[in-house]
Parts: sequence; C-alpha cells; structure tokens
Amino acid sequence: MPGLTLGDTIPNLEVETTHGRIKLHDYIGDSWTIIFSHPGDFTPVCTTELGKMAAYTEEFARRGVKLLGLSCDDVQSHKEWIKDIEAYTSGSKVTYPIAADPNREIIKQLNMVDPDEKDSSGNNLPSRALHIVGPDKKIKLSFLYPASTGRNMDEVLRALDSLQKAAKHKIATPANWKPGEPVLIPPSVSNEQAKQMFPQGFQTCGLPSKKEYLRFTQV
Amino acid sequence: MPGLTLGDTIPNLEVETTHGRIKLHDYIGDSWTIIFSHPGDFTPVCTTELGKMAAYTEEFARRGVKLLGLSCDDVQSHKEWIKDIEAYTSGSKVTYPIAADPNREIIKQLNMVDPDEKDSSGNNLPSRALHIVGPDKKIKLSFLYPASTGRNMDEVLRALDSLQKAAKHKIATPANWKPGEPVLIPPSVSNEQAKQMFPQGFQTCGLPSKKEYLRFTQV
Repeated sequence: MPGLTLGDTIPNLEVETTHGRIKLHDYIGDSWTIIFSHPGDFTPVCTTELGKMAAYTEEFARRGVKLLGLSCDDVQSHKEWIKDIEAYTSGSKVTYPIAADPNREIIKQLNMVDPDEKDSSGNNLPSRALHIVGPDKKIKLSFLYPASTGRNMDEVLRALDSLQKAAKHKIATPANWKPGEPVLIPPSVSNEQAKQMFPQGFQTCGLPSKKEYLRFTQV
Repeated sequence: MPGLTLGDTIPNLEVETTHGRIKLHDYIGDSWTIIFSHPGDFTPVCTTELGKMAAYTEEFARRGVKLLGLSCDDVQSHKEWIKDIEAYTSGSKVTYPIAADPNREIIKQLNMVDPDEKDSSGNNLPSRALHIVGPDKKIKLSFLYPASTGRNMDEVLRALDSLQKAAKHKIATPANWKPGEPVLIPPSVSNEQAKQMFPQGFQTCGLPSKKEYLRFTQV
C-alpha cells in the first residue's frame, strides 16, 4: 500500500463536500487542520465519532483548528446522515464539512484505505484515519484505526495541545502529558540557551549516566 | 515515502536487540505485539515513554501482549540507557527487548521514519511510531507521532482493549469508549443474529432516518 505519512505534504486535491467544492490547500489556509475519514454513513461507530467531533466544536475553534470529515458516501447521503448524528449527539451541530469520495481517489492518496473492509460491491472503504495537518500543509501526526475501534477525541485534543505548544515554545511533552503539566526541554537546546529561553527556570533530573538531558520546565 | 500501513503484514526482519537476535514473526508468535520506535537513546521524551511502557508491564502481560522497542542506537547504548529509564521510572524494570537499527533499514520498512529529524551526521531518525500487530502478523492500528509529542500509553491500552474485545465478541467500540462502557453491534450483524449472539439484549437508538443501526450492548 503506497502511503502518505508523517512529514509529507497533503496533496492539493479538489473535493466535493457538504459545504461545496474545496481545494485542500485553500481550505487549510494558515490553520491547523484535522482531516479524518470514516468507513461509512449510517453506521454506528462513525455516528458516535462525528458526533463527538461536533460536540467538541468549541474546543477545536479555541485552538484555531479546522475540521474536515471524509468518506466514500456522496454529499446527499452525508446531509441526510447529519440529522442522525445531531439527534444522537443532542445539542451539537455538525458545522464542519464532510467530503465525498465515491471514486476512492482521495482515500488512496491520503493513506486512508482499510484493506480489510469492503462495501457490498467489493469496493474499498476508508479506515478511521486522522491526520493533524500544520499550517505548512504537512502531516504532523497520524492515527490509523480500524473499523472496530472508535477513536478517542480526547487524545486528539491532547496531541493538538502538545503540537501547538511545541511549535510556540520550542518544548516537547512527555509520555501521557496533559495540559498544565511540566514539559521537557529538547536536546537541541543547551543549558545556557535554556536559561535564556525559560527564565522561569527548569529542573534537571539526576540520572545514572550523569547526562543532563531530562530537563523539565513550565510554559 | 513508501509505507507500511493498516492491514499490511509486518515483514519478517531479523533484528539485533537487547535480548539477542530475533526474527519478527518468531517474536510475535501467536501474540498481540506492540512495535514502537523512539528518536534516540538518552533523550528526554523517549525516557519518559519507555519508562511508561515499563511501568505498564503488568497491564500488557495481563492482555497477553508483547512489546518491542526500536531506535537507530546500538545495543550497547540501549543497555546503558535502560539504567537511566529505570532510575527515572522508579520501581519499574525494562523487561521488553529494544531493537537496534543503526543502518536505518528497519525504520524505513516499518514506516517509522521522521523526515523532519536527523542526527548530527544527517542520518534519518525514527518518529514515535507505534504499530499494534495482531497474532496474524498484520497491523491492526498505528500511531505516528513526531519527536515533540510523547505518546499516551493509556490510549494504547484503551485501543488494545477495544481490538481484543472486537476480535473476541464481534463488536465495535464507540468514540472515546472505555472498558466497561457499552459497545456497538456492527452493521454486518442483523437484528435476528444479534438476538442470538447477545442474549443479554441490546438497545437500538431511535434516529431521524428510522434506520436501526445504532445498537448498544454490554459484553
């Protein structure tokens, strides 16, 4: 399977969506963007996932993040299905566009094919793929989940917070980090530079190697 | 960037590890296996990540899951670094093997290259890639995170629980699902079949489309 992966530029495809025809690069503009596929409209896990994305609309807006859903169903199907999503996720509106890819061209180019899932005609179906794309149109982070496993939109938000904080402050975040917890100073920053960059100070963990690479600070 | 992706079979590579030379298929055997790369030994985020994997050893063992770490450092470096990981993650032992890929052959074949990160000689470095591999040696789920963003090992456990439950009970799990919460009956199961398969019963959500696809049960 050929694949788009971390660091690659999203191709500037023209796609039909519930909000009209868009070109991916124009849609992304200068924003962080989440492009996420689902296997099919009117199916159970997808309804909970797109509902959760709708419920988190304000969380994404606060972070300046655009959303774009995608499956191989057509626009009319998406529009009908949105009524179900909104009924299930009471109080939330699907305000983001959902793209239609009946010819399976987009899912192939965006590494969103699930080879284990086919429709009744034997056509490929999308996986639960999710790419976080930076304002430079490059893929910063990817999740590839199978049909059986709904994604965790809280992990999407956590990862977004890390990516945006890292881009702004030149820091990195440890395993299982949550917003508000200490962050790490990357190895590319010397102790001298760190004193300038982080006047709030930092703590260096003592380690058997005596190497001073595990440095925590708050930003 | 060529890529291994969802549904692909892991190549049966022979790799040098801290536990000796192994062939990937022999190591996987009949188990679920997590193969995860890190950018480099003696670096901060990686230390917290491999420490968290060590701290969760019993969680993985309870699920019958094997772990295999991987970076481009050599085995001697890994062995020295493990002392730091264990000192930082007090009370935990790194009992899983860590593979060495100084020639960058394995990370290329396993779609674990981070094109934005190079070592001081200009060589590629691994991303924070993580593949959950099934007993059939196929990739069931992938995470691709950049150097700045430590993975969330709680999400790894959550996804594993979903995958294993789906494989056992022919169910799927909704967005943000956690163990113990209701699961979904997939569209491939008719209502008649569902009555047989889930004698504990199931609830069908009423939706504007009147379609009966959103069916919750407990397993």
